[in-house]
Amino acid sequence: MNERLRQQLAFIIEIDKLKQIYRQTILMDGSRTENDAEHSWHLAVMAILLAEYAAQKKLDIFRVVKMLLIHDVVEIDAGDTYLYDEHAAKDKAAREQQAADRLFPILPEDQAQEFRRLWEEFEARATPEAKFAASLDRFQPLLHNYVTQGQSWKEHGVTSDKVERQQGQVLGEGAPILWEHAERLIREAVEKGYFAS
Amino acid sequence: MNERLRQQLAFIIEIDKLKQIYRQTILMDGSRTENDAEHSWHLAVMAILLAEYAAQKKLDIFRVVKMLLIHDVVEIDAGDTYLYDEHAAKDKAAREQQAADRLFPILPEDQAQEFRRLWEEFEARATPEAKFAASLDRFQPLLHNYVTQGQSWKEHGVTSDKVERQQGQVLGEGAPILWEHAERLIREAVEKGYFAS
Repeated sequence: MNERLRQQLAFIIEIDKLKQIYRQTILMDGSRTENDAEHSWHLAVMAILLAEYAAQKKLDIFRVVKMLLIHDVVEIDAGDTYLYDEHAAKDKAAREQQAADRLFPILPEDQAQEFRRLWEEFEARATPEAKFAASLDRFQPLLHNYVTQGQSWKEHGVTSDKVERQQGQVLGEGAPILWEHAERLIREAVEKGYFAS
Repeated sequence: MNERLRQQLAFIIEIDKLKQIYRQTILMDGSRTENDAEHSWHLAVMAILLAEYAAQKKLDIFRVVKMLLIHDVVEIDAGDTYLYDEHAAKDKAAREQQAADRLFPILPEDQAQEFRRLWEEFEARATPEAKFAASLDRFQPLLHNYVTQGQSWKEHGVTSDKVERQQGQVLGEGAPILWEHAERLIREAVEKGYFAS
């Protein structure tokens, strides 16, 4: 077997582990938490369907999809850091850099570089593509929380103002119409008692 | 909320169910079976990494990725049909058509049509994109079986000649170099006793 294919398959086998990295988001049927592989799949489909709501028109949606497919791969080593966990947030960047240093070089060099750049673009949230990708990454758990009547919010003592503070800027910047809708969901969730008080 | 966004979100919520449709493939750590959402994510990443092995060059890889992201959505209603289950294969097409008739029209009409066409293209396996997508859909479970020492093959009494018969044509047609590698894995698996006898 050629060395290039061997490296590609080694990476494909390695990332199978993402199916075992569980997040705080709860599936819409309330049965269990979601893992990173499922989450990435869901976001990729959302990017295709909701592209028209991106703040900036003329996006390269395939790049958004690629970013979303691999944005959590570093969590194989670094684990999932809950958005509302201020303690874990402190060393998140360092843990994820280390993971990226180990994981991407499993690939042939050109693809390692491509994936690393996509991941860094996502993290930096500076391009229109990364901003839209990030906004979907915020919107999806909010939708899950709404459908499961705030199961995860309540469990982690998350209040509505915390959600608005954490989501508003990212969502508003990447997908203003989705943020408008998210605000509507948050208002309804407050009325229905889905948040921790 | 506008009606279009309402329909899009209804579909996004509906397909959360794909995370609960379990396949016969066993995760590479041997711990549990894989679900359709994880499987679709894995195939989409593989399409990006292995594009160079597609039988026909100048593929629209984004279309391959889109096909792979939604190719199993119909299994929300129709369930997963194991490739080696000849009984279930008989009414598979009818069950899946019915599922497509219910699921895609949840979307706004233009997107319902786009997704339906992508799914039909994947099923018909007539375009270069669909052929490559199908070959990844065959190659991935084979890789899982190899890594887990044939756990799923043994459980279902699958022999090496059955695998060669079912995989050879599809894989050979869509991605000859991957088929060459698959044949090598099958030979090794025979030697190591990973198949049912």
